[in-house]
Amino acid sequence: MPTLKFAVLPGDYIGPEVMTEALRVLEHVAKSAGHSLDYKIADVGGAGIDNHGKALPDSTLALCREADAILFGSVGGPKWEKLPPAEQPERAALLPLRKAFSLFANIRPGLLYKDLVDASPLKPARIPNGIDIVCIRELTGGIYFGQPKTTITLENGERQACDTMVYKTSEIERIAETAAVTARARGKRVCSVDKANVLETSVLWRKTVTDYFAKKHPDIALTHMYVDNAAMQLARDPNQFDVLFTENMFGDILSDEMAVICGSLGMMSSASLGTGVNSHGKPFGLYEPAGGTAPDIAGKGVANPCAQVLSAALMLRYSFGLADLAAKIEAAVRKTVTQDGVRTGDIAFGRPSVGTKAMADAIIANL
Amino acid sequence: MPTLKFAVLPGDYIGPEVMTEALRVLEHVAKSAGHSLDYKIADVGGAGIDNHGKALPDSTLALCREADAILFGSVGGPKWEKLPPAEQPERAALLPLRKAFSLFANIRPGLLYKDLVDASPLKPARIPNGIDIVCIRELTGGIYFGQPKTTITLENGERQACDTMVYKTSEIERIAETAAVTARARGKRVCSVDKANVLETSVLWRKTVTDYFAKKHPDIALTHMYVDNAAMQLARDPNQFDVLFTENMFGDILSDEMAVICGSLGMMSSASLGTGVNSHGKPFGLYEPAGGTAPDIAGKGVANPCAQVLSAALMLRYSFGLADLAAKIEAAVRKTVTQDGVRTGDIAFGRPSVGTKAMADAIIANL
Ligand SMILES: CC(C)[C@H](C(=O)O)[C@@H](O)C(=O)O
Ligand SMILES: CC(C)[C@H](C(=O)O)[C@@H](O)C(=O)O
Repeated sequence: MPTLKFAVLPGDYIGPEVMTEALRVLEHVAKSAGHSLDYKIADVGGAGIDNHGKALPDSTLALCREADAILFGSVGGPKWEKLPPAEQPERAALLPLRKAFSLFANIRPGLLYKDLVDASPLKPARIPNGIDIVCIRELTGGIYFGQPKTTITLENGERQACDTMVYKTSEIERIAETAAVTARARGKRVCSVDKANVLETSVLWRKTVTDYFAKKHPDIALTHMYVDNAAMQLARDPNQFDVLFTENMFGDILSDEMAVICGSLGMMSSASLGTGVNSHGKPFGLYEPAGGTAPDIAGKGVANPCAQVLSAALMLRYSFGLADLAAKIEAAVRKTVTQDGVRTGDIAFGRPSVGTKAMADAIIANL
Repeated sequence: MPTLKFAVLPGDYIGPEVMTEALRVLEHVAKSAGHSLDYKIADVGGAGIDNHGKALPDSTLALCREADAILFGSVGGPKWEKLPPAEQPERAALLPLRKAFSLFANIRPGLLYKDLVDASPLKPARIPNGIDIVCIRELTGGIYFGQPKTTITLENGERQACDTMVYKTSEIERIAETAAVTARARGKRVCSVDKANVLETSVLWRKTVTDYFAKKHPDIALTHMYVDNAAMQLARDPNQFDVLFTENMFGDILSDEMAVICGSLGMMSSASLGTGVNSHGKPFGLYEPAGGTAPDIAGKGVANPCAQVLSAALMLRYSFGLADLAAKIEAAVRKTVTQDGVRTGDIAFGRPSVGTKAMADAIIANL
């Protein structure tokens, strides 16, 4: 009876509320399959700052190091808004975690159920069957971490700042592999997004990706698109993509555009896979909802738990190799929201809605 | 009787077709106001490559240097697609032009008439009155031109590429001024977009913009937004913005996202203003439609001339100080498309449509 050992970092505002429900779902599905959960809960983000003086407390990081995966809630909010941007909870918690565990592959399903097209800002005619794409973002390279990163005073007294976007072949190849593997389990089509008409890093990106697919995945259809065009195509016709993949900064922008186009942020999950292999022989990973802490509805028990529950499912799939249990959760969420029409306020569209706990109850009943 | 001296660079595919009509509209409006046009036509883009071996032929650049403004069509297409990205017509024509004339301020109206909401991928309920925002993009700084830009071979044989994003105070201040002046003539609200939680350049950007507005434009409401959030907000609720402004690369992505959200690319104009002052005491500028060369409909006489016509109007406003004539053209285009319902196929939505020339005739009749 394998034990699933993971760190739970609920974070701020609705973070702990939806986490409680995701843990209930996990308990249920694990028990039914004869697995036991072994998790510890730690502060992160604003809670880390308030209780330990640091968005990513050392004790929290230590806990993560002992675990096989991290289930992350969400962090930040008005309480810490006055801090300088670089010290704000989201940034100060996530970037060090990504670096500490080399979480290079951010996988975000862009999934909108057919029954939920009302949630999208797009006209239903553009997405008659909902949306089903995946965005893969390189998460530890590029301009986020490249050196030098400096601000200097010029001779004339002006200030000048500089950031550096850097990529090397091996960094591009490993994320290309993630994209290929993801596409192989789906529509076998990958669109690599870059700005090869302007950036040296994109020229290397395009060449490396092209060579890598030709050599390792010749049966997967690879296309290339400039990032500005990708931003247009996502808003025009998202389903033209199967798997979209791109570098860190472009992925930050495009994956968020995709999230909004897929309607409710309350449904968007994500996986960030590391280079490390955990005690199950699977990638160590961090799993988190794509939405934020929703301070306006925090404490009311009305937040949508689905994104957190679906993130937990991704954890089972990627870090514990339990694809069947992941699929079971995903099917239960889908049935709850669509067939049963049990929905929190963010996806109810005027119909009666339920609270966070009732939604989780309904999901559990459907497991 | 002032003479309006400008260079006409029609470019490829539908470029020359819509340019012909824009010139007819210009002739008409200039004549009626007692101005005479003095323009010369030159090859650019694919036409430049084919006829002179260069996307921006020396003779074309020389012609631009003698003029007070450039009316640009659009360039590129399948014929030159096999060229390396950096040699493709659009890139190889536009970047040198931007550099040669220090075209630092790209102004793009994000305008969708109420009658044309069908053109947008967004649900009409999200934009009941159409869209009316402006995106201002810094166009000569940042990662497009920053040095070093290199690709090297590492000791282990891997390749590593690097691009550099650089901004200095004065570059940020001058584009902040453009944003402020634009907002002053509109809703007096500016949203500055950056990634100050990750980038040094964005930290400098945010501080410089904040200080500049406090000192020079304290009456204009300034807010800040991260670029990933801006990509979401544009697709959710574009009209929350009045004037959006940002650095080069973010502007490339966001302005294209905005264009698609505003519906037909055939309606999207743009102005790129330089640091130079022309013989009218106004900024030298380049004016171009935001859409592409539309190779699929080239030669059929059905392309929408509005974007080119509206770009010509921006030229009158910014480079010749003829705001009244610009407004006259803009009103004529609006009346033609909305009240009269005279539309090319791209904005007809199943109703009868007219060709490029007939559309221009209708605009001229409305002047
Ligand atoms: C908080 C911030 C640094 C982070 C990023 O830009 O990567 C966030 O926007 C995200 O996408 O997870
Ligand atoms: C062709 C390309 C270099 C250019 C850019 O990225 O600036 C284009 O996309 C644009 O937006 O005008």
